[in-house]
Formats: sequence, structure tokens, C-alpha cells
Amino acid sequence: MSLADRLHHIAPFRVMDILGRAKAMQASGADVIHMEVGEPDFTAPTQVLRAAEASLQKAQTHYTAAAGLPQLREAIARYYADHFGISINAKRIVITPGASGALQLILGVLVNPGDKIWVQDPGYPCNRHMITMFGGEAQALPSDNALLNVDASAQAITKASLKAMLVATPANPTGQVLSAFELGSLITACRSANTLPIVDEIYQGLQYDSSPTTALSFDHDDLFVINSFSKFFGMTGFRVGWLVAPEAYVEPVERLAQNLFLAPPTIAQYAALAALTDEVRPELLRRRDVLHERRDRLYAGLKNAGFALSGSKPGGAFYIYAKLPEGFNDGISFAERALKEAHVAITPGADFGFNDTSDYIRFAYTTDIDRIDEAVGRLKVLLG
Amino acid sequence: MSLADRLHHIAPFRVMDILGRAKAMQASGADVIHMEVGEPDFTAPTQVLRAAEASLQKAQTHYTAAAGLPQLREAIARYYADHFGISINAKRIVITPGASGALQLILGVLVNPGDKIWVQDPGYPCNRHMITMFGGEAQALPSDNALLNVDASAQAITKASLKAMLVATPANPTGQVLSAFELGSLITACRSANTLPIVDEIYQGLQYDSSPTTALSFDHDDLFVINSFSKFFGMTGFRVGWLVAPEAYVEPVERLAQNLFLAPPTIAQYAALAALTDEVRPELLRRRDVLHERRDRLYAGLKNAGFALSGSKPGGAFYIYAKLPEGFNDGISFAERALKEAHVAITPGADFGFNDTSDYIRFAYTTDIDRIDEAVGRLKVLLG
Repeated sequence: MSLADRLHHIAPFRVMDILGRAKAMQASGADVIHMEVGEPDFTAPTQVLRAAEASLQKAQTHYTAAAGLPQLREAIARYYADHFGISINAKRIVITPGASGALQLILGVLVNPGDKIWVQDPGYPCNRHMITMFGGEAQALPSDNALLNVDASAQAITKASLKAMLVATPANPTGQVLSAFELGSLITACRSANTLPIVDEIYQGLQYDSSPTTALSFDHDDLFVINSFSKFFGMTGFRVGWLVAPEAYVEPVERLAQNLFLAPPTIAQYAALAALTDEVRPELLRRRDVLHERRDRLYAGLKNAGFALSGSKPGGAFYIYAKLPEGFNDGISFAERALKEAHVAITPGADFGFNDTSDYIRFAYTTDIDRIDEAVGRLKVLLG
Repeated sequence: MSLADRLHHIAPFRVMDILGRAKAMQASGADVIHMEVGEPDFTAPTQVLRAAEASLQKAQTHYTAAAGLPQLREAIARYYADHFGISINAKRIVITPGASGALQLILGVLVNPGDKIWVQDPGYPCNRHMITMFGGEAQALPSDNALLNVDASAQAITKASLKAMLVATPANPTGQVLSAFELGSLITACRSANTLPIVDEIYQGLQYDSSPTTALSFDHDDLFVINSFSKFFGMTGFRVGWLVAPEAYVEPVERLAQNLFLAPPTIAQYAALAALTDEVRPELLRRRDVLHERRDRLYAGLKNAGFALSGSKPGGAFYIYAKLPEGFNDGISFAERALKEAHVAITPGADFGFNDTSDYIRFAYTTDIDRIDEAVGRLKVLLG
């Protein structure tokens, strides 16, 4: 066996192992509460399902263009106009096989071996792995108690002049939401340092204390944005997302997309068209409100149970990233015990990087309020 | 703008440009005959469409495991047992977002910067580009008149001891089918040289003069196979394929899949389950026979029109790769003229590599017999 070196830098997701074991326990009769996976428990909205069916009725099963259906690119441009009041040329929007595809295309057209890219740490682990895959190196932005320190980050960005900065808001695993002011200061720092900003907005819409924003509001055609139909639109299994690229990068992005993916899934793109309509929106907002309620309940429960939570509630996504209570310092063994003894499946912080990770765990509030209460109750017993 | 070096090695597909212009001409009223794209004109079979709808009815819209639905992996293992009489452990089968995803995973776990990989030239251009993307280098196997020279290839493989060999049968653009004996001799050469064989079988089933084979018949757990639901099963836009890996490589392949794709599209996987059933098979064989008839008609027509065709008809896929008639020597300008003057869209050989490409063109017989006749008639006029 002769494995490429890049595989030595790609750790397995511990969460996948936990998920596997949780399912096995369930199969043998245990009442497991799932709070480990980064996926909403909601299915795709009804209108989205019906649109996919209509597309099948019409047998729309051929390839689309590599950059996606023109009408979907146009619809996303209109979405930005309607919901954020900004005008984006639809040609800059490229449909991708999930946000993963978008990330791969952007890093693929940017990163040369040896290039360094700013990332959040803790952060979504694939970001780091994909940078490595293209021979680049992820460099952690400064943080405090797991949260991005925006001032220190802006200073670091200005000084170092790296190739690009990849920042998510709302963020995984912390749920941190950057204000327009904070995001603006990072982007300004990038501009001064000739660093390309890449803003991951895949949790856009899932914000509970403020209105959604987009980095495209600061756009002077020199940043990339990543988005997805997976989270807010509840379409994980469809595998469809998008990117917005500076105009000069659209052609190379399309060229790479032809080679890497040929095209995004066709039915999923017709389904996504429906997801953007006004008919679906009330249901999406209702779901956001459900998540909001769950966040508040879980936050209060964890605080009460003795977890060290940062001062304010996480503003977005569907995660609470919690420091273990006094007397516990290993997230991996805590997650093991939580699964084995309390039948609560959670993700150890170690999945998310190197800073403030070993003594942290991530809860996904992708299960009902009563199950959240039950999980907190069981953990209290575990904590003794 | 700061483009990664790899983009300089990735040429755009000329065929995409031709397709775009052909569609524009059509939109303004021209009667264009499409023989350029590598996609069957058939849609997905009815039962496949209905299975996808049933899956939507059940709202099966969440992620699957990164390696795909266990029942689909099992069904593919049974497919190998039923149709090829071989026993493959379902754990070695990984479902991927199209064959493109399979190729990316295999090269990703194998190729270190500087590694050399044998490829067919002419061949599918993405193969070369993806090797480059991982820092490797494609090296052409010996060929005669665009066809792989198996004896010379086996000798070259034995001598050079490269990292891997990537060979397709049936092949694009030539339609060349390797006999079991020929494929066996290449695999034997690979073994003697410690070179990993990767066999692309995405046109498996679309063979007209012999029964389909699989490299897995020679399997001693030391080769990779790539396959797809796109071509024989008519499911291009669903984006679902698979790979079979040596057992030791399954874990790293899954790990890379988690990071690159998360999971293949869910609905597509349920649809693919239906594609493998006995109910769909008669329709798949009927389509194969239609393609067979078209191949014979196009081959005769092109020969009659003066194209230099190799001695025997191409045995598989749905392409005829033809050398230009006497007096013509530039495939790119010929394809330009064919589109502009005869409204026949074809692909210049230059899309497929460097050997026997500049004075060749590829015809896809993915259109009806009467359109094939019409296209040949128009080209005869063009040739004068």
C-alpha cells in the first residue's frame, strides 16, 4: 500500500465514528439522543420536494452546464437583491455540488503549494484539509475562548499578507456571528494586505439575535462567497450550493468545475429553484424560530449543568460549543462517556482544530426541545 | 488576479465552447445536429424516475454515509455476482458523486507531487487534468493510429515502474474495447512493475461486438475500478457513480470522501438502486441495441464520405474517432467549419490529448439514425 502524503494530514472525523456507534447502540435498543451531526433534523420543505418530483416527471435527467442552470444563477442574483438589497451579476454565481464543491473550486483556483491561508480555529475541519490537499497551509487567526478575536485578527491579517482568508459567519462549531462592522474590518484588513477574502455563509439565515448579512455588501469584486442550500433551506442530501466569485475568476472556476464535477446534480438544481421562492419562505422562517427556541433552552440547560459558556449566546448556526465543567478536561473521553453512559451523542472539540478544542465539546440542537431537556438531564447525572 | 499554477495545465474543453455556440445558433433558428457531447440522448429509464419520486415522497433528503447507502453498495456487489460471476466484498465498493468523484478520490489517495501515471492518449481529458491537480504527471501509453498498442504498453509498463496506470475500456474518444486477454496482459505488466492498475469501466455494458467484462475478474485485491450510472444506465444528471478499491485503501478513500464531498446525492442513490434491478434491464439492452445500429450506420457513412477509419469498428462507448479525409489536417478548424457551414456539431481531437489528435475529430452517435444520415450527408457536401 502506497498512500499519498496528503492523507497523513487528513484526520478522520471523530463525529462519524460517534455517529456510527450511536446508530449501532440504537439498533440494539438504546434510546440515543443525537446531538452530534451538523445537519438539521427537518427534511426539505414540501414545495422543494414537489419541485424535484415535477422535474422527474419532465425527465430532466441530463447534465446541466458546469456552472449550473442559468435560471438558478439568475434566481440567486434576485435573492441577493430581494433579501440584501444588493446587485450581483448572475455570471459571477456558480452552482456547485454542495458548499464542499464551492470550497474545492475556490481553493483549487487560488492555492499554490506553500501558500498560507488564514482560517478560524476552532473551525470546520474540511477547510483545513482541503487547503492541505492543494499543498497549502492553514494558519489560525487569533481567538479568545474559541471565538475569533476580530481586532487581533485584523491586525494579524494586515501584517502577514497571506494568500487568502477563509472565515465563516455564522461559524461552526462556535455559532459565532460577525457583525457587519466586524466583517468589514476583516475585509478591509485583507484589502490592505492583498489577501483575498473568502467568506463562508452556509449558515446564512440561521441567525437569532440579528438580521442576516452578506460579505457581498462590501463587495468591490474582490472577494469569494460560499453558500449552500443545505442548512437554511434544509436540502443537505441534494448536494447543491453556490459560490460568488470575482468576475476575473469565473472562467477558471468554471474550467476547474468541468474537470472536477462535470456539473452539479440536475434534479437538485430544479428543487433549489423552488427553495428560493416566497412560498417556501414562511416555513424556513418558522424553522429558524424553532431553532432559536432550542438554542435558548439548550444554552440555559448547559449553563445550569455547569458547562463554561461564553458570555453571550451563540448568534447563529445550530451549535453550542461548550467548555467542559470544572474537573473535566478531555473532550474526547467526555464524548465517549456521554455516549456510553448517558446515550447522548455529541462531538468532541478535537474535531475542529487545535485551539480551545481538547477541553470542549459541540452540541448540535438538531433535535426537539423535549429531547434537549432529556439530554441535559442525563448529562447532569453523568456530571454527578 | 492570482491564479494557481495548476490552472495553466488545465485546458478548457473545446467541446463546451462548440456546444455553447451550437445552442446559440439553434436559438436563432438553425437546424443543428448535435454529435459533440458525451451524453446519451436517452433520459433515465422510467423505473429509475419513479424510484427517485418515491424517495422524494418519503422525504429522504438527509445526508447518507460518505461511502453511500449500504444497500446500494450491496446491490452493486450483487450486480457483479449476477452479471460477471464474481464475488466482491460490498465494503470495497464506495458510492461517489459521478465517476468524476471516483477518479478524484482514487488519485487523491495515491498521487504524490511528482508521481507519474500511465494514461491513454488520446483519452478522456479530465484524467490528465486531475493527475496534474494532485501534482502528478500523466505519461502516455504507446498507441497506433490513436488506439492503445497493448503489447508495446505492457512492455513500457514493465520497464518504467510508474505509480499507477489509468486505462479505460470501452474508451473515450476511440470506443476501443480491450479484450479480457489484453486487459489481463496490462494488469500482469502492472503487477510485475509494482504499478497500481486503475480501470475506468464507465462505458461498461455499451459494447457491440463482445460481452462486457470487468477488470475485477483479474482481481487479487490490488486494483481500482471506476464505474458510473451515467452512461449505460442513462443517469448523467443524477451524478452518481462508484469505485471498487483494494481493501486497504477503503478507509483513506472514505476519509477523503468525507472531506471532499460529505456524501453523494441521496435521491440519486435511491434512484440508482432501481437502475440495477431486472425490471430495468430489458430497456437498457434495447438502448444498447439502438446505439449498436447507430454505430454501424455512422461508421459506414463516414467511411463512404472519405474519413480514414481504422480497420475495425470501435467496439464500445458511443463514439467514432475519425481521421480527417485527405486534404484536411486540422480538426479544430474542421469542427469550426462543420458547425458554421453544415450545422453539425462535433468535437475536435485536440480535446483528447497530444497523440493522433490534431487531425482527428470525434463523433458521438447520441442522436437518431435519420439525423446521423443527415449529418453525414451535410459533411459530404462540406468535403466537396
